[in-house]
Amino acid sequence: MEMDQLPSTMTASVLRAVGEVALEERPVPTLEPDEVLVQVASVGVCGSDVHYYQHGRIGKYVVEAPLILGHEVSGRIVAVGSDVDPARVGQRVAIEPQRPCRTCEFCRAGDYNLCPDMEFYATPPIDGAFAEYAKIQDDFAYEVPDSISDDAAALMEPLSVGIAAAQKGGVKVGDTVFVAGGGPIGLIAAQVARAFGASRVVVSDIDAGRRDLVASYGFEVVDPSTEPTDDIDAHVFIDATGAVPAITGGVRATRSGGTVVLVGSADEFPLSVAEVAMRELNVTGTFRYTNTWPIARDLLSRGLVELDSLVTHRYGIEQVEEALTATGDALKRIVHPGVKRVEVPDVRSSHE
Amino acid sequence: MEMDQLPSTMTASVLRAVGEVALEERPVPTLEPDEVLVQVASVGVCGSDVHYYQHGRIGKYVVEAPLILGHEVSGRIVAVGSDVDPARVGQRVAIEPQRPCRTCEFCRAGDYNLCPDMEFYATPPIDGAFAEYAKIQDDFAYEVPDSISDDAAALMEPLSVGIAAAQKGGVKVGDTVFVAGGGPIGLIAAQVARAFGASRVVVSDIDAGRRDLVASYGFEVVDPSTEPTDDIDAHVFIDATGAVPAITGGVRATRSGGTVVLVGSADEFPLSVAEVAMRELNVTGTFRYTNTWPIARDLLSRGLVELDSLVTHRYGIEQVEEALTATGDALKRIVHPGVKRVEVPDVRSSHE
Amino acid sequence: MEMDQLPSTMTASVLRAVGEVALEERPVPTLEPDEVLVQVASVGVCGSDVHYYQHGRIGKYVVEAPLILGHEVSGRIVAVGSDVDPARVGQRVAIEPQRPCRTCEFCRAGDYNLCPDMEFYATPPIDGAFAEYAKIQDDFAYEVPDSISDDAAALMEPLSVGIAAAQKGGVKVGDTVFVAGGGPIGLIAAQVARAFGASRVVVSDIDAGRRDLVASYGFEVVDPSTEPTDDIDAHVFIDATGAVPAITGGVRATRSGGTVVLVGSADEFPLSVAEVAMRELNVTGTFRYTNTWPIARDLLSRGLVELDSLVTHRYGIEQVEEALTATGDALKRIVHPGVKRVEVPDVRSSHE
Amino acid sequence: MEMDQLPSTMTASVLRAVGEVALEERPVPTLEPDEVLVQVASVGVCGSDVHYYQHGRIGKYVVEAPLILGHEVSGRIVAVGSDVDPARVGQRVAIEPQRPCRTCEFCRAGDYNLCPDMEFYATPPIDGAFAEYAKIQDDFAYEVPDSISDDAAALMEPLSVGIAAAQKGGVKVGDTVFVAGGGPIGLIAAQVARAFGASRVVVSDIDAGRRDLVASYGFEVVDPSTEPTDDIDAHVFIDATGAVPAITGGVRATRSGGTVVLVGSADEFPLSVAEVAMRELNVTGTFRYTNTWPIARDLLSRGLVELDSLVTHRYGIEQVEEALTATGDALKRIVHPGVKRVEVPDVRSSHE
Repeated sequence: MEMDQLPSTMTASVLRAVGEVALEERPVPTLEPDEVLVQVASVGVCGSDVHYYQHGRIGKYVVEAPLILGHEVSGRIVAVGSDVDPARVGQRVAIEPQRPCRTCEFCRAGDYNLCPDMEFYATPPIDGAFAEYAKIQDDFAYEVPDSISDDAAALMEPLSVGIAAAQKGGVKVGDTVFVAGGGPIGLIAAQVARAFGASRVVVSDIDAGRRDLVASYGFEVVDPSTEPTDDIDAHVFIDATGAVPAITGGVRATRSGGTVVLVGSADEFPLSVAEVAMRELNVTGTFRYTNTWPIARDLLSRGLVELDSLVTHRYGIEQVEEALTATGDALKRIVHPGVKRVEVPDVRSSHE
Repeated sequence: MEMDQLPSTMTASVLRAVGEVALEERPVPTLEPDEVLVQVASVGVCGSDVHYYQHGRIGKYVVEAPLILGHEVSGRIVAVGSDVDPARVGQRVAIEPQRPCRTCEFCRAGDYNLCPDMEFYATPPIDGAFAEYAKIQDDFAYEVPDSISDDAAALMEPLSVGIAAAQKGGVKVGDTVFVAGGGPIGLIAAQVARAFGASRVVVSDIDAGRRDLVASYGFEVVDPSTEPTDDIDAHVFIDATGAVPAITGGVRATRSGGTVVLVGSADEFPLSVAEVAMRELNVTGTFRYTNTWPIARDLLSRGLVELDSLVTHRYGIEQVEEALTATGDALKRIVHPGVKRVEVPDVRSSHE
Repeated sequence: MEMDQLPSTMTASVLRAVGEVALEERPVPTLEPDEVLVQVASVGVCGSDVHYYQHGRIGKYVVEAPLILGHEVSGRIVAVGSDVDPARVGQRVAIEPQRPCRTCEFCRAGDYNLCPDMEFYATPPIDGAFAEYAKIQDDFAYEVPDSISDDAAALMEPLSVGIAAAQKGGVKVGDTVFVAGGGPIGLIAAQVARAFGASRVVVSDIDAGRRDLVASYGFEVVDPSTEPTDDIDAHVFIDATGAVPAITGGVRATRSGGTVVLVGSADEFPLSVAEVAMRELNVTGTFRYTNTWPIARDLLSRGLVELDSLVTHRYGIEQVEEALTATGDALKRIVHPGVKRVEVPDVRSSHE
Repeated sequence: MEMDQLPSTMTASVLRAVGEVALEERPVPTLEPDEVLVQVASVGVCGSDVHYYQHGRIGKYVVEAPLILGHEVSGRIVAVGSDVDPARVGQRVAIEPQRPCRTCEFCRAGDYNLCPDMEFYATPPIDGAFAEYAKIQDDFAYEVPDSISDDAAALMEPLSVGIAAAQKGGVKVGDTVFVAGGGPIGLIAAQVARAFGASRVVVSDIDAGRRDLVASYGFEVVDPSTEPTDDIDAHVFIDATGAVPAITGGVRATRSGGTVVLVGSADEFPLSVAEVAMRELNVTGTFRYTNTWPIARDLLSRGLVELDSLVTHRYGIEQVEEALTATGDALKRIVHPGVKRVEVPDVRSSHE
């Protein structure tokens, strides 16, 4: 598709108010010289999308104007800005959905995820990608090989969360890694820990179905409500639950000098500081990621991480609200904005 | 003094029960081949000594038999084990009061402070040094030059705590360091932070007298009960209070990506985990120290840290209980076990 | 000065060919939205400027068109691009004379000095600042306080070289640092090492005058041609000579596990690789710097580094060739492009 | 076998002079309290053994008295010192063949391989293990599971060399690693790099047979004498040749900011220092290893590294000289000291 063949408007699914999503015709984004336009193929539904839909805010970020959600995105470049290599048109890409300022102290030191002027997809007031098209700066659109599906390419975003967690934890060959939570992030973090060389990966979940799923990926599972975890003696504990008991238990399961990585904890709760101090634990968290897409692509290309099996439901652009409100045993839901409706959204793949 | 001239017994101040300290005649310690015998000159009184006196325990460490307290120690070598260079007899030394196993995973990796088989002075059932003599392995007795007083040599132990905090925090040239607490540890940590190159060192204390004292060392002071601290934007926050409001405030005062070092927090309390995760703070603690005495000696020798001015009270061996129960504005109390009684214990030096 | 009051042309000193420098009237640079225009106050003469003048090239960088030299620059902002805060006009600034791409793998990871598309002042084909005006991106122009002179502000560039060397070497409190070369870079690196907490700083130079100068800064000096250096047992060795014997000696003077930092070595020569391997030395180098200006400003503001005393000669814009060809005991020569001629260029300050 | 059933003497193969090896009856080693006695099962022949046999020295280490060679050792514990758990008797173990002092600055910091008082097997005047029995400190004898053969357990020593190289190089997920040399160390280093997560591992060798062998392990191979390597753009280059052209080529093949690890370079030769400095390479080496046996055991147990296929020849205690002088396409030769003679020493296994 040539740039002059592009439509001037596109269909987008817009969050108009708490609990209200509607289709709108929006102008196709215009490009800065360093941007590319992506025809969106797949968009994963993240817990934060659901949270904005339900509550209209996450912490200090408040939806005050209609907002397009969706920040786990893959697609195909259909147009490029004046400074971008035109040969990129046609490339299948995964999008790193952030735009740092590149000039602040954090950006210049390589910690651009901490940029105070970050513009992040689907975080007010920046639009996301539940839409036919989305734009991103050239270097944040990563070409993917055909061996990576559109859905998996979109899920390179949560994979990046898992990579950032493993990096923050310093997971290395021979480590024992304990992951709390057998949902998508936990399953991804566990896979990444294994790919980083962890010798033993233990995943806890209080839900029996989730534990079965986790076990099907070859991980050791534990039910923290009935089984002791203090003896795991983990080098690294990664929390993917945000739940107090899980974190408390994980801290105790971490060996002296070990690292506790909190992924996406948005709530405050008591942490046993005595244990942190007396056992010289390192407690830290991850806020998004930096420079993880090339690693994500490498892990996927080599089959060290598998993402397609996480997809349990797929939806068209008219079904975004359905995707945001699905209940039950959904693991990962994907919206295909180029499709109006998927007739049988539940496509849960069998991992085994 | 030659080894064969040593007495067979010594006077020691022994904690017999909670709130009960008494002088006893004890055998002078016999030496392993790799140990040295130190005639004790100065012993600082630490909060942990007071805590054992008052409560008979600290966490899992319980005083179940008579115990000699005191672990901030200097003195002179008067005898050496068969494997030690006899030329060491006569050396003035500061003691690193710990004996790691040297063979466990932690010891072999250099993290001997985390050794599960550590024997530490004045931690049940290991005796400390409120006594005329004490023994230690050869390489944990550090020769000190005459420019370092006996009292300052003893205080190389809390200085080591401050050094460990600055190391854990990664304090470097240009950093802003925020220290909570203007007591001995806080004052030492602040001095160390300055010596490590910190550009700005801010110390908070809720006590006006302490703030005046801190200011006399040239540090910026703040009253956290009336002045805002959120804008300090510290690269490193060091808590030397163990108090919830201080830590909570310090976490908020730390910049994104910064480090929070908890020194000696023995209690549990709520830490805002959301902030840790969302701003990628690193929360850690220090448990004693490793290999800090050479650095302590260097800082003292170069005048980059000053300890003598911290000493406000001095006591003889018969006055240990008095030292453990002193109230008021004591900063650092020192016991001189070679002296029976100090007539006027309050010898507060003027720092200015 | 308002932007519309700016002249359209400026006087620049241009390298037209090897050994040929001439004044030209050039257009005042026009600004991109993110740039500022600086009226140049002081420009230090670097060895690389002299090298381009004498040889027309440095390694792969070849002067193929007239080039303005000079990359150690301070001045005052007189105009700003459309995206820059207009309040910056009037600020005294030091310039970090590089323009990285900000999008490549190196830039995004914080290692922008390794950016393959770097545009660096006075490196063909990018003009430097032996001219009345120069432009730079907003965030690479650092405001300096009045306590820092124009000359010192210009010398924040070689100071940054010294900071990068100390950072690469990991200089920390208590270290022994050995610096080869008592010229400007060596003197600066030694000062920085001291500011980073080095306990002992030894500087070698084969020239007696240089050794006297170094000694006047309070450093230990050694004549490597007559005195042994193997016993220095340095944690960090910084070479500021590029000379084979100096580097060979420095490697031997470095303790096992220590670090060797080569500053500006442009020639190939034999390095004792056996020693590197058997003693696990880390041999590395510095290529320019990243994010050092804030640290440079801090060190200068606190008086931890002193630069004005390094300036021995000053010149006007008409005297650039004189500055490039001066011989004798010049330490640091400075061009003041806003002045036509300095009548008595030799203004060697007395450091003592 | 009970301790009191042990013989008082044992057969050992002793290097009496350059080129002269003979069997001797030696007393079975007596144990210190912290030592174990190992009945030796397998001992790998290292290039250093051959070098001592041929030249009587390696650098500063000179054979001045009869010496037992062999430092790649596995076996079974048959007796323990008084401080060792008697339950260890009977364990199959791999030996880490070094005895650090545990008290020097290096040991206490975890860098015990740099201990100046190290006693290392088969390094004059310390005996190695071409003998029926050998002793080692308790914590340097690592139990191995039955899944690891005696030969593989012995080869955990060269595996440790490879692990140390990968650790020194900081090999991580996604890296390109270039290894020069397809001999045992190169093949091991390549396997370790892959286990550490390297995305691409390229091995060079000038010998076609070696290249075929390397390719059979699934690595990319290159003939440096005919194929260009500059474009490899390696994050880490590991030299396992000690040859000048290999190192020179490897340095050029390393990307800016990357790391060059020299394994066992005993000779001096010219290194392009300009490239090191201008491209901020980190050139370092490995000298033995610290704390690598647990990682080696983990890698072997998980099948991430395979060692048995490296063994091409096996010998009995009477054939040590034969083992030291074998020529041809030997890859790894193993001595079984408990066997007098192996009738057909060439047992080259087929890796494919």
